[in-house]
This record gives sequence, C-alpha cells and structure tokens, in this order.
Amino acid sequence: MANLISYNLLNSTDIDFFLEILPPECVKTDKNSLEAAAKDYTEDLSFLPAIVLLPRETQEVAAIMKHCFHRNLPVTPRGAGTGLSGGALPVYGGVVLAMAKMNQVLHLDENNLQVSVQPGIITQQLQELVETKGLFYPPDPSSRGSSFIGGNLAESSGGPRAVKYGVSKDYVLNLEVVLPNGTIMETGAKVLKNATGYNLTQLMVGSEGTLGIITRIDLKLIPLPKMNWLMLVPFVSPEKACEAVSAVFRAGLCPSALEFMEREGIVFTLKYRSDLSFPLPDEAKAMLLIEVDGNSEEELMNQCEGITHVLDSFAPSDIWMATSASEKEALWKVRRAIGEAVKSHSIYKEEDTVVPRFQLPALLQKVKELGKTYGFESVCYGHAGDGNLHVNIIRGNLSQEAWENELPKAIRELFAYVKSLGGTLSGEHGIGWVQKNYMDIALSPTALTLMRGIKKLFDPTGILNPGKIFPDEEV
Amino acid sequence: MANLISYNLLNSTDIDFFLEILPPECVKTDKNSLEAAAKDYTEDLSFLPAIVLLPRETQEVAAIMKHCFHRNLPVTPRGAGTGLSGGALPVYGGVVLAMAKMNQVLHLDENNLQVSVQPGIITQQLQELVETKGLFYPPDPSSRGSSFIGGNLAESSGGPRAVKYGVSKDYVLNLEVVLPNGTIMETGAKVLKNATGYNLTQLMVGSEGTLGIITRIDLKLIPLPKMNWLMLVPFVSPEKACEAVSAVFRAGLCPSALEFMEREGIVFTLKYRSDLSFPLPDEAKAMLLIEVDGNSEEELMNQCEGITHVLDSFAPSDIWMATSASEKEALWKVRRAIGEAVKSHSIYKEEDTVVPRFQLPALLQKVKELGKTYGFESVCYGHAGDGNLHVNIIRGNLSQEAWENELPKAIRELFAYVKSLGGTLSGEHGIGWVQKNYMDIALSPTALTLMRGIKKLFDPTGILNPGKIFPDEEV
Repeated sequence: MANLISYNLLNSTDIDFFLEILPPECVKTDKNSLEAAAKDYTEDLSFLPAIVLLPRETQEVAAIMKHCFHRNLPVTPRGAGTGLSGGALPVYGGVVLAMAKMNQVLHLDENNLQVSVQPGIITQQLQELVETKGLFYPPDPSSRGSSFIGGNLAESSGGPRAVKYGVSKDYVLNLEVVLPNGTIMETGAKVLKNATGYNLTQLMVGSEGTLGIITRIDLKLIPLPKMNWLMLVPFVSPEKACEAVSAVFRAGLCPSALEFMEREGIVFTLKYRSDLSFPLPDEAKAMLLIEVDGNSEEELMNQCEGITHVLDSFAPSDIWMATSASEKEALWKVRRAIGEAVKSHSIYKEEDTVVPRFQLPALLQKVKELGKTYGFESVCYGHAGDGNLHVNIIRGNLSQEAWENELPKAIRELFAYVKSLGGTLSGEHGIGWVQKNYMDIALSPTALTLMRGIKKLFDPTGILNPGKIFPDEEV
Repeated sequence: MANLISYNLLNSTDIDFFLEILPPECVKTDKNSLEAAAKDYTEDLSFLPAIVLLPRETQEVAAIMKHCFHRNLPVTPRGAGTGLSGGALPVYGGVVLAMAKMNQVLHLDENNLQVSVQPGIITQQLQELVETKGLFYPPDPSSRGSSFIGGNLAESSGGPRAVKYGVSKDYVLNLEVVLPNGTIMETGAKVLKNATGYNLTQLMVGSEGTLGIITRIDLKLIPLPKMNWLMLVPFVSPEKACEAVSAVFRAGLCPSALEFMEREGIVFTLKYRSDLSFPLPDEAKAMLLIEVDGNSEEELMNQCEGITHVLDSFAPSDIWMATSASEKEALWKVRRAIGEAVKSHSIYKEEDTVVPRFQLPALLQKVKELGKTYGFESVCYGHAGDGNLHVNIIRGNLSQEAWENELPKAIRELFAYVKSLGGTLSGEHGIGWVQKNYMDIALSPTALTLMRGIKKLFDPTGILNPGKIFPDEEV
C-alpha cells in the first residue's frame, strides 16, 4: 500500500498551542482517549491518533485547522464513531477532531419548519426534540441512538425510512463548514430551492470529512405523521421476498419502510441476543418488515390492504400486523440488532451494496454463489425498498490467507456484478477506508480524477481525513 | 465588463469538420438559425453565434467537444431556450450546441420505476409518456410544454409541485455527460441511494451547462397520484396571503402546489390575454392557488378541510374549489400565463428570489418599497409554498439611464435584503448571464473561489458556456 503523503508528527509545541485555545478537558493525550478514538464500528480495525481534540464552537475548529494546516498535521474528524466504512479511523495518526462537545440545537424555527444544529447532536435526540413540536426529521440509520447528525451527513446515511422520505442528504439546506486551511464558509442558504451556483452543499454531504469540517447544519423538517403500523411477512424463499418488494412499489404503494432479512440473519441474532424474540416459522426463509405511516387509521388500513393484496400473489406463509408501540418496537429491535449481533460474535466484513430494487433477487443469489465458491458464510439484510442490501461476510473458518487474499477477489466479483446490474458500492455507509480500493469498479478513471481534483481544490495539502475514499495509487 | 478569455473564431475548416461528423441538416449557419439561437426567454437579450450544431447522439457531442476543445472555440449548450437567466445565450458567439435532436426515451424501466432519456425531450411529453404507465415525474416548470428535461436539470428547475415533490434535482439518479475535452463520463448509478464518492450528479445538476454537456439522464419516477383538486383563495392583502401559506404547513398539511399571485399580476395577465377568465373579487389584493392530490376523494376532502380550517383565521373573502379538469385548467392557465404576459407586453427584469417561506410577507413589502424609491412597478407571483417569489420589474416609464444604472442598485438592495432573511438569489431559474454580478451578495469570496476552482477543473480552458454564473472580474 503506497503512502504518497508525508505529514509532520505532533510535538509539544502543538499541544501547547491546543491548550491555549481549548481548556484541558478538551485536549486528550491519555491512553484511554487515544484508544477510544483509534476505532469506529468497522471490522476490527484500529489506528492510534497522537491527540484527540474536542472543540466546542466553530471558531475553535477554525483555529485548530489553521494550526494543523500550517504544521502539516493530519486531521481526522470524528462523530460518534458508529461508521461502518472506517471513515473516522485516523489511519495516519495525528489529530482526531472529535465533535462530541458541539452538540447544541442552535435554533428550532417552527415558522419555517427548519432546525439549525451543531454536528455533534445525537440523531435520535434531535428527532425526539423536533417531535415534541409535531415535526419530523425522518432519516433513521440503525445507529441513530448514538450516531451524530454530522457523521450521518458526512456519510450520506440513510435508514429504513429512506424508502419514503429520502436519506439525510435530502434534508440539508445549508452547511457551515471549516475548510482545511481554517476558513469558515457557508455552502448554501436556508431555502427549500436553490439554483445559485454549484451545489456545494451536496458536494460536502457524503464527502466523508475529506473536504471540510461540518460545524453547523440547517435542516428542513416536515410535519410528523400521526401514526404508523408494521407488518411482518415471512416468505418461502429470499427471492420471492425480493420480488414482492418490487411489486409493492409497482402497484403504486409507498410504505414508510420496507426491510428485508434473510432467515440466517434472524437466527444469528436470536442466538446471540437471548433477550429478543421474534416469530420465525419453519418455512420462512426470509422476512419482510413493512411499515406504513399516515394521519388516520383509515389511511393506514387502505395502505395495508393494498400491500396485502400485492403480497398474496407471492404466497407469504402468513402476515402479522403490529399496531401497538411495544409490538412494533419488539420487531424493530431484532431488525436493528442484526448488524450488531454479527459484529459482536464474529470477525466479518460488511458490504453496503445497492442496485435498482428489481435486481435484488439476482444480487442475493450472486452473494450466495460467491459464498459457495470462496467458502464464506454470509448474513444478508437491509433496505430492500431502496435496493440496498447489507452483505455481512462472516470470517467463520476461513484461513487468514483466504480472508486476506482470497476474499478481496470475491468482493471484487460481487461489486463488478453489482455494477453490471446498474448498482454501486455503497448506498449509505460510504467508502471510507475499507472500500476505497474497489472504487475503480464503480467509477471511471475520469470520474475518479475529477473527484481527486475536487479533493485537491478543497484540501491542497491533503491533511483532512487522509487515506479515505480514493484508491491507493501505484508508486 | 472585462473579458479575460479570448477564443478563436470559427473558420471554414471547422465547418468542414462538423460536416464530416454530422449531416448537413444538423449544421446550421443560415441567418434564421443563428438568430433563433441568439436568444432565450431572458429579457430582450440577443447574442449571435457563429454556428448551430444539432448532434443526435453522445458520440457526436463528444466529437464536437473534442474539436472545439482543441480549437479553443466557445460552446454554449442549448435546450429549448426557455431559460430566464440567460443560461443559453452564446455571449461569446462561437458554437451553439442545440440538443433538440437528442430527444429519445432510451428505456422506460417499469420494474424499477426509472426512465432513461436523452436531454432534448420536452418535459411535458416525458410526463405524459410515463403517466400512461401510472408513473409520475412531478417537476413541472411553467415552461414544461416546451422546455427540455436537460435544460430543466441544467438550471435546477422547479415548478408548482416542488412544494410537495421536490425539484428536478431530486429525481436524477445518474447522468451521462460529455466533458469540455470530449470525454464521456457517468456521474453516478441507477440507484436510489448512493454514498460512493463525491456527488458529481448533484454538482452537474444546476451547473447551467458550464461543467459538461448532459447527454443521458436516468430519472427516478414515483407512482402517479390518482386525483387532485384545486382551491382558489382571495385575500384582502398580499401579506395575509403569505402568512396563510406558512400557517398551512405549520398545521401539518402538505398541498401539492401552493401558488401566490398578487392582484396586479392577474389584472396584467387578463388585460393582455382576453381568451382567459378568472374570478377576481374587488376586495382581493392577492390570491392563493392551492392544489391537493392523493388517491381517494376522502383523502382530498380531508386535506381541503384541514386547509380551509387554517385559512379561516386569515379571513379569505371566499374559497373556490375546482374539481373538474376544465375548471382546474382554466385557473392554472392564468397562473402560467403571468410571466408570459409580462414578457410579451413590457421590457422587464425577473428576479427569482427565494427565502424561508415565513419571510415572504417581509420580502414582498420590500419589493414594493424599493419600487416606490426607485420608481418601478412590479408584478409578483410564484411558488409561495417554497418561499420562491418571482419579482417581475416592469420597465414602464423608467428612463434608459434609470433602467441601466439605477435599477441594478435597487436589485442589489433587494438581494441584500433577501440574503439577510436567510434567502438567496435564485430558487429555480439559475444565475446564468443576468444575475452573475450579484453573486457576491449570496456567496462568500471563499465559496466563489471554490466554485471557480471546480469550473477550472472540469473546463480548464473555459470553452463551455463562458460568461455565465461567475461575476465579471476586475481587470
């Protein structure tokens, strides 16, 4: 792996500078803090930084960046560290810029249905806050109980509700960002439509902290739907389940979530989470979890009837309906716990494949074929309504040699197939550190060259989140 | 005005080259063709190109661009020429690349609710085609009967339905573009979620033909709502009407269009369009046109009741309801004809101001104040639900001196006020030629420098749509 960039090492003068602009509790060099910032939720990867800084406001971020820019110190921004592609890993050491103390709601504008927040607020806290005013911030990554809104935007996160409401990028009106050289800039305006120059806002969203540090976010909100119901539908084959997904949309229905779980994923989860329970009939080889929302029981009933009618032709073995909060939560808990269960109990790699949704059955079949060829087990689940399938590849009995050298070949085959279906590498987890060497499959050399040019434009010396998104170059 | 770029002039060898790659009917140098390509719908501006080329497929576009790149000939892409900011004006002459012959639907994918089209298809034709399959492409600029989808994307067009369904940018999954040097590239993938590198798709959308030529568009479609109703609501003051707009959304309602027209706009339109009629009570100083859509009469009734309940507290003088196709069309015709009526019967300037929607009354008041100070009449209307107000400034009796030298000061004052309200210069018309020298009001020097850097990255020699978006630089 080539490292073409070289950085300075942190010295005591740097630490003195940081202690001048930040109080001691915001400048961390102790072992525990460094070790905590060395990892995110990605596989078992770990890279120790030299220091962790916790700015409290934009001006502090600007001062830190200005210093690091002049000193040529690598800076890795960090939200809650729940990322699944290694975006927050400080792979070149240096400074971790942790946004945990920038967690304020700056302005909840009920007149305009907007909210301005700092990046370090936990997504679910933000959601609960606006819900008290009858407002709704729909994007709901599984990590929303701990992930930060800033990290959600950096990775262009989605979640189950994306199928009806769009992903986090669709709610951003404007960003305040600090550029690598310390300049503070706004990308847009607090408006619902904007045709004023290039879309810097959407360029920043999903850039995985490689172009600038997000320090304020102006979000659009929508009215909160009054109620939702959840249907759980078992299928005799994963393929039938995936086909049904496409048919639901084709029939003009628009559920607020449409999640796919293969049997193995549920079994795996129940094995390691004895506190959870889930109805899993013997014949069920896959399950769909289908949520509908709206403002009246009538509306929900109409949608459920429409969906049931479509599903009937795919012979589900049964359809359960959850309408109480506790019943719904019990089902969602299992869905959300799958990734965690896999993570807790095996070394694994997660692929965030996304294809046009009608191609899901083909994608799933390919995953299983590759598993047979390369000898790996996989647990597949995800946002079927969006064509977004999370493929968890379990290390199991694979030799170190196979895991390190053979498996990447299988992943390349998988991504090449995804690409041939019209899909791409990541739907909502980003490229980060672990997928970057597959980027040549998804993007042409021209597109990659333009992206590198954009990176260079924003970050000429490459100090910001180095080692991410772009494939290693040959030396 | 500084022209820092110099280009070569078209010569007979260039024409010979174009005649080698295109049939004679696609290479136009006759006076009528050049004059037709010299204008769009922006004010009374006109710039004669040297040649108009009409490619039929991507490879032809690539060959043309490659030639122009090597010859340093300016190229201005052109859709249907309905733009309102001068984006299609060939201000440096040279080549107009007219997309009118690239008007094919390439693939209507009913399984995935997607459609791939060439850029030259008329937006309304595309909409009508997908509607025959029960599908919906919502964005509906007033020009949709003649504008091309490619131009809609280049300018990030909206339309009345944006308030519920978003603007054209929200439906683009992937683009094929030809870069200024002739390279063909795709920006994304045919997927609903994409976290794979920087968002080149959204960078291209709204870039007004300055970064690349869009040659194929992969659009997302949604199920077509079964029905809609239209309400027409007169108010005793424009301010009351604007306040009502904000209250409707605050109450959790989501109309599929929410249009504002001040009385003068309607009077002006009816004066010049004797074929149109419109109920206009004496006390009505402003009107709201409110559309609701859905899949059952019950659903529509619920929404209309909710809206009526909110409006009651703003004392509308009456509420008309249009449910038949002909009644609805009669009302929409007047709304859509306002811009055209202004254009046909006076020299005018149109500002596409956009603010957070609750600020609309303040914006409207400012327009009228400025009119008094600078002596101009104005006709205001637009997409109030989005906070997007089209301000038509009528030349009327203003002297040439006042029109040329004083009015820009009024516009600067207006935009500065818009900015102070959290708004920006353009919601859906783009910056193009006529708004570029106001860009310093909306964007910081840093943001503008980054945008110029992006332009340089995609178009190093500046041959593509030169003279647009960026303010003239001091020499």
